[in-house]
Amino acid sequence: MAGLTHFDPKGDAHMVDVSDKPVTSRVAVAEGCVKMMPETLDMITQGRAKKGDVLGVARLAGIMGAKKAAELIPLCHPLPITKVAVELTPDHSLPGVRIEATVKTTGQTGVEMEALTAVSAAALTLYDMVKAVEKSMVISDIRLKLKDGGKSGRYEAQ
Amino acid sequence: MAGLTHFDPKGDAHMVDVSDKPVTSRVAVAEGCVKMMPETLDMITQGRAKKGDVLGVARLAGIMGAKKAAELIPLCHPLPITKVAVELTPDHSLPGVRIEATVKTTGQTGVEMEALTAVSAAALTLYDMVKAVEKSMVISDIRLKLKDGGKSGRYEAQ
Amino acid sequence: MAGLTHFDPKGDAHMVDVSDKPVTSRVAVAEGCVKMMPETLDMITQGRAKKGDVLGVARLAGIMGAKKAAELIPLCHPLPITKVAVELTPDHSLPGVRIEATVKTTGQTGVEMEALTAVSAAALTLYDMVKAVEKSMVISDIRLKLKDGGKSGRYEAQ
Amino acid sequence: MAGLTHFDPKGDAHMVDVSDKPVTSRVAVAEGCVKMMPETLDMITQGRAKKGDVLGVARLAGIMGAKKAAELIPLCHPLPITKVAVELTPDHSLPGVRIEATVKTTGQTGVEMEALTAVSAAALTLYDMVKAVEKSMVISDIRLKLKDGGKSGRYEAQ
Amino acid sequence: MAGLTHFDPKGDAHMVDVSDKPVTSRVAVAEGCVKMMPETLDMITQGRAKKGDVLGVARLAGIMGAKKAAELIPLCHPLPITKVAVELTPDHSLPGVRIEATVKTTGQTGVEMEALTAVSAAALTLYDMVKAVEKSMVISDIRLKLKDGGKSGRYEAQ
Amino acid sequence: MAGLTHFDPKGDAHMVDVSDKPVTSRVAVAEGCVKMMPETLDMITQGRAKKGDVLGVARLAGIMGAKKAAELIPLCHPLPITKVAVELTPDHSLPGVRIEATVKTTGQTGVEMEALTAVSAAALTLYDMVKAVEKSMVISDIRLKLKDGGKSGRYEAQ
Repeated sequence: MAGLTHFDPKGDAHMVDVSDKPVTSRVAVAEGCVKMMPETLDMITQGRAKKGDVLGVARLAGIMGAKKAAELIPLCHPLPITKVAVELTPDHSLPGVRIEATVKTTGQTGVEMEALTAVSAAALTLYDMVKAVEKSMVISDIRLKLKDGGKSGRYEAQ
Repeated sequence: MAGLTHFDPKGDAHMVDVSDKPVTSRVAVAEGCVKMMPETLDMITQGRAKKGDVLGVARLAGIMGAKKAAELIPLCHPLPITKVAVELTPDHSLPGVRIEATVKTTGQTGVEMEALTAVSAAALTLYDMVKAVEKSMVISDIRLKLKDGGKSGRYEAQ
Repeated sequence: MAGLTHFDPKGDAHMVDVSDKPVTSRVAVAEGCVKMMPETLDMITQGRAKKGDVLGVARLAGIMGAKKAAELIPLCHPLPITKVAVELTPDHSLPGVRIEATVKTTGQTGVEMEALTAVSAAALTLYDMVKAVEKSMVISDIRLKLKDGGKSGRYEAQ
Repeated sequence: MAGLTHFDPKGDAHMVDVSDKPVTSRVAVAEGCVKMMPETLDMITQGRAKKGDVLGVARLAGIMGAKKAAELIPLCHPLPITKVAVELTPDHSLPGVRIEATVKTTGQTGVEMEALTAVSAAALTLYDMVKAVEKSMVISDIRLKLKDGGKSGRYEAQ
Repeated sequence: MAGLTHFDPKGDAHMVDVSDKPVTSRVAVAEGCVKMMPETLDMITQGRAKKGDVLGVARLAGIMGAKKAAELIPLCHPLPITKVAVELTPDHSLPGVRIEATVKTTGQTGVEMEALTAVSAAALTLYDMVKAVEKSMVISDIRLKLKDGGKSGRYEAQ
Repeated sequence: MAGLTHFDPKGDAHMVDVSDKPVTSRVAVAEGCVKMMPETLDMITQGRAKKGDVLGVARLAGIMGAKKAAELIPLCHPLPITKVAVELTPDHSLPGVRIEATVKTTGQTGVEMEALTAVSAAALTLYDMVKAVEKSMVISDIRLKLKDGGKSGRYEAQ
């Protein structure tokens, strides 16, 4: 098991030196969900037509959130992101909405945090728009699904 | 069940008009957790002494995250926050770390989103610092625990 | 004709002192448009159904833009905005899209700049999404339509 | 006529994937103007000497605005800008002030939005500083004048 | 000597609760300087006329910096600033440039940090613009000169 | 002595064109200090154990500050930083705390301003956390210690 790279030998937090890592193509996919009552989900899914596009606003917030990862997370490197896509899918078996974010860059470090931040921002925005209807919604199961590019190789969640 | 207040009669998203709401004291408490392998938790909890203060950095990111809610969430009102506290507690029964954020304001609308954003930012930061050790950590169960002040009254999660 | 209030007697720029102005309800409405070829407008207006919601994304960018006015405009006061609405209306007589933004606050200074910034951000975002189709679009006629509240009284564009 | 690249086949907005585009030198020039009454223009142009440097403050806001394009425009890629220049020229034939912004980068996508945002930010700032004198100023004719570098080749406005 | 208010009884950092403090008029004045070689100072002071307005750009950066204090300083409360003025005065006895910033608000906590941040941002910007000429400049003696309003009363540096 | 590169021949401020500079490894080290009364320093240095980690919070603010340099300093180029480390060392001979920041990038321009901003942000944050105890602290002697990489070669403060 590797050590905590974000701390120097004295135990002080720092931003890891990636200066000597090669510039490579990198991709990360993260996922998560917002769980709610079936009636709340019904209101959202009818939304696109009649009530306003809850999922569209949350998707956009997710995309913009990816660009804010390095501002929100103290030791995260700023990166020139080359692609962000966020997908929100209603799932009546939860019941709730599943969120998946894909982020790419050509850089010296990975984009896991950008993908996870995109999912979080989309989930928070969905909560914000629907909270007048249900305050008991839960944001859950946010995790890294896939990571590729860079020296540490491919990671796929099981 | 109330309607989706963030959409106008045509179904277009807008920032809800709170101009006529009175300025009152408001508080919100949100919670969530990051689940991990027991070995990862051990590494973090030994951290304060030897390996660097993972929980301290995440707590600070949570506090700063509360101030960024209106920037991250498109339809969220900007508010002059008067207090933020974020607590991270290792819990071997998860295993993982529990996060709780308390936010206060004196304003025209509530601080639920600020508290939920604080928890999310702390969780993402914890993930960032520990991901070299374990990529399979999961951010979960982020929800509103308590809300008080304002016309809609007190809400407590069950 | 009044003097340039944003400069002190020596001619140096400063942020005008509004400390002694009373806290009042204020509203501002700004408008503008993006002119384009008729074929481009057709592509956008068919968008909601088939091609993606160009107007919805631009509207959201306008709302978020209002919150960024004090960051974008050096001498603009930061204000706790209480309402933002942005409307985009296709107009075949331009041909193009008309944009109108309404912003409210309860504060010590007006929200003209927030409304004008909302219109600008919506227009820039519309341009960004459609530029692959037509680069010759023109952002035009951005102006203050209405302003009310505060000592200087009501202003309506003629 | 090409399609709307900012939407995927389902019609959902996303940030276009530029990962496979080569890193090339890119430049964009945008222009626009702020129209006003002749007396207002006189007040500004006398400004440099006596009343404070309205054009200097607006020029700086334009430069800083270019750096904020990716924050203001949801689907705009963040880019490491390598040059920004903004020029404001009083034009008594308008009457008003003409604004021109030139932006360069070495990257995977163009800087049209950065140049257009620079012009918009300079125009909004000019309006802000002069609005105590004239509220009826109009921000107009913001458009792309030139774009070069990248696969889609050179574009020059007619 | 009072305790460190930014830490709770467990020693964890938090944003101090100011919810119960009254809203009062507050002012803070901070000062500092940038020391340089006499030749460098000559170049700057001739600047207004011929070489470009170094002091004007630094003054504007100071004003904008005051608005960024709560973003830069983790435990600083966001505040609706009502006035900012920054003055830069060449002083051949240093030799260098003296900087003074005055910030006002009507709020529940003081604006010392906003004034100190304004001085720091102006100093850093001055350094940035002049560093091609002299890298050995030193930013020094940044301190609070005056603070008034609020329960803790008036403070004046000796 | 070279000229002021941030101004064009007309004397107008602009962001220097670095488009044609090669991408090289660059490093900068800056330093500074916060001077205080011996009793105040004692309170901070006992902090890690009992009173809360003042130095840890200031160090993190310094790291995040480096990422904000291009936002705070108008003519500073945005850069993808590859490393930031900030060290705070109590020094009873001042008495006070010494701050040193090291920043690296692989880019077309240097990171002096990022290192100086990191020191400034750490110093301001330290002041903020300790100001309830002593308002007379002074932030001093912020300067560039080392710069390497890029055409202008190595610079070391004497």
